[in-house]
Amino acid sequence: MKIAIIGSGSVGCLYGARLARGGHDVRFLMRRDLEAVRRNGLTIKSCDGDFHLRPAVFGKSEEIGPVDLVLCALKATAMDVAEQLVRPCVGPHTRIVALMNGLGIEEQFAGWFGPERIFGGLAFVCINRGEPGVVHHLAYGRVAIGHLAGNHEQSREIARLFADAGFETSVPPSLRQARWEKLMWNIPFSTLCITAGAVTTREVMGDPGLRMLAERLIVETGTAGNADGCEIDIPATLAKMMANTATMGAYRPSMLVDYQNRLPLEVEAILGEPVRRANALGVPVPVMETQYRLTAFLDLLNRGEVRGEK
Amino acid sequence: MKIAIIGSGSVGCLYGARLARGGHDVRFLMRRDLEAVRRNGLTIKSCDGDFHLRPAVFGKSEEIGPVDLVLCALKATAMDVAEQLVRPCVGPHTRIVALMNGLGIEEQFAGWFGPERIFGGLAFVCINRGEPGVVHHLAYGRVAIGHLAGNHEQSREIARLFADAGFETSVPPSLRQARWEKLMWNIPFSTLCITAGAVTTREVMGDPGLRMLAERLIVETGTAGNADGCEIDIPATLAKMMANTATMGAYRPSMLVDYQNRLPLEVEAILGEPVRRANALGVPVPVMETQYRLTAFLDLLNRGEVRGEK
Repeated sequence: MKIAIIGSGSVGCLYGARLARGGHDVRFLMRRDLEAVRRNGLTIKSCDGDFHLRPAVFGKSEEIGPVDLVLCALKATAMDVAEQLVRPCVGPHTRIVALMNGLGIEEQFAGWFGPERIFGGLAFVCINRGEPGVVHHLAYGRVAIGHLAGNHEQSREIARLFADAGFETSVPPSLRQARWEKLMWNIPFSTLCITAGAVTTREVMGDPGLRMLAERLIVETGTAGNADGCEIDIPATLAKMMANTATMGAYRPSMLVDYQNRLPLEVEAILGEPVRRANALGVPVPVMETQYRLTAFLDLLNRGEVRGEK
Repeated sequence: MKIAIIGSGSVGCLYGARLARGGHDVRFLMRRDLEAVRRNGLTIKSCDGDFHLRPAVFGKSEEIGPVDLVLCALKATAMDVAEQLVRPCVGPHTRIVALMNGLGIEEQFAGWFGPERIFGGLAFVCINRGEPGVVHHLAYGRVAIGHLAGNHEQSREIARLFADAGFETSVPPSLRQARWEKLMWNIPFSTLCITAGAVTTREVMGDPGLRMLAERLIVETGTAGNADGCEIDIPATLAKMMANTATMGAYRPSMLVDYQNRLPLEVEAILGEPVRRANALGVPVPVMETQYRLTAFLDLLNRGEVRGEK
């Protein structure tokens, strides 16, 4: 199958590289690592076993052209250029998987390309970029795939691609619920790692006050999700999230890595849109809203977009 | 009148120096600035006019001995040593003014010295310490005095001392309400300046999201205060706090100054105790509680009491 990876950060590289190793014709749209990968190839240092490949990399989507499947792994902060980066790869039968964080992403793709071809992808993976051309895959890797219009048969087809590449996969009954459940991790842990002074999940889990905030954020998020039509078992998910995170050690969520690299944070996808949905549904999310406003400001301050003094 | 200043930070120095200039026998207990003031005296660079004096300074309370009035201007983080620092200055008729931040301070003094002699003092003043022996008095200076047991005549006597030293004074109908009203400024602005990344009031006022959090914190604080028996006009106080803060420019609240100097923050007096009272009264204060947990952690991280990674 001919596959375009649009957005070759760590997530795009890991999944694309494993699909390429499985024999698919995978074409990567790259920006930061383009020259390094052309020169030295792509190295995946992975908990599943390291490997190296020399993939087909491109600097422009037009050079890739129409494909069978677009895997869009852009950061949510790049949604303003997503349409123009994806469109050259879309032919009449192209399917598009948005392997991205946040709420409302698939709906935006549907607006550009029609809902029938749009899938949401959720990557449950601990992963960081290394030096150019190197990705560090630390743990997990499960992918959940959901069709925007709820066609599970089509979702299972896409999921099979990932399963054949060696990943655990699932097709959740509800894509919307899967998105909210993923936010039940991202909202507490990605954002407390920022507002608590740029620390890892270990410090958040190790401080009783921050743990309590994490638990409140998980409950607020699940409550908003259920008001948004989901049927999340909040106590069970809370227990699972806390237990899983306790095993992660000093993990740096991608939002923290971005912060430390002074890159824009996925604030609107991970916090802004959930807060707006909760407000529209009349669900109070005061801790989430506090995290939203603080994180949004810290993002600007960190990148010199507002003046501060230290 | 013989007056002991226990805790000669910027607040103790300003009020003590002005009382000394007015002719009182003022004796300062000093730690950080003791040698500098012995050598060079005390300089008040003040919006009301600079002045310099050579005050009576001491390194131990025992050297001061019993006085008519103790002005305790310790930081709330020093409450664990307040009794031992104050006791040598207390004779049978000594009155004690706790010129300190936070809730529950006077009650602790009453436990040590009996309630009849205990007054709360609230300083509405923009002030920072400079180099040793120098205090920068930037704006305001009003003092509110309340007797713990509600004896307004006694409060007015104490207030007159400050009025004679050139300060605007007041005797609020309720000391408790005055404390909560002061927290309606300290809780939003002192603590957002920390959690928003160590910025001044100008940045907090300049960002719409942070302003909104400030407003929510003011309302939460006022609501908790009213549940605690006060009769605060919350909308009027909200409007006044926001308008006053807008005139302050790039003001660094003392909590921010302490943070930047890696000193312990008054977290429990300004956030912990109000949160506990609100919880005991069944008043939801989720934004305040978030600020409490984040500020408490940032304080530890900032002083190397917990490990982080930057």
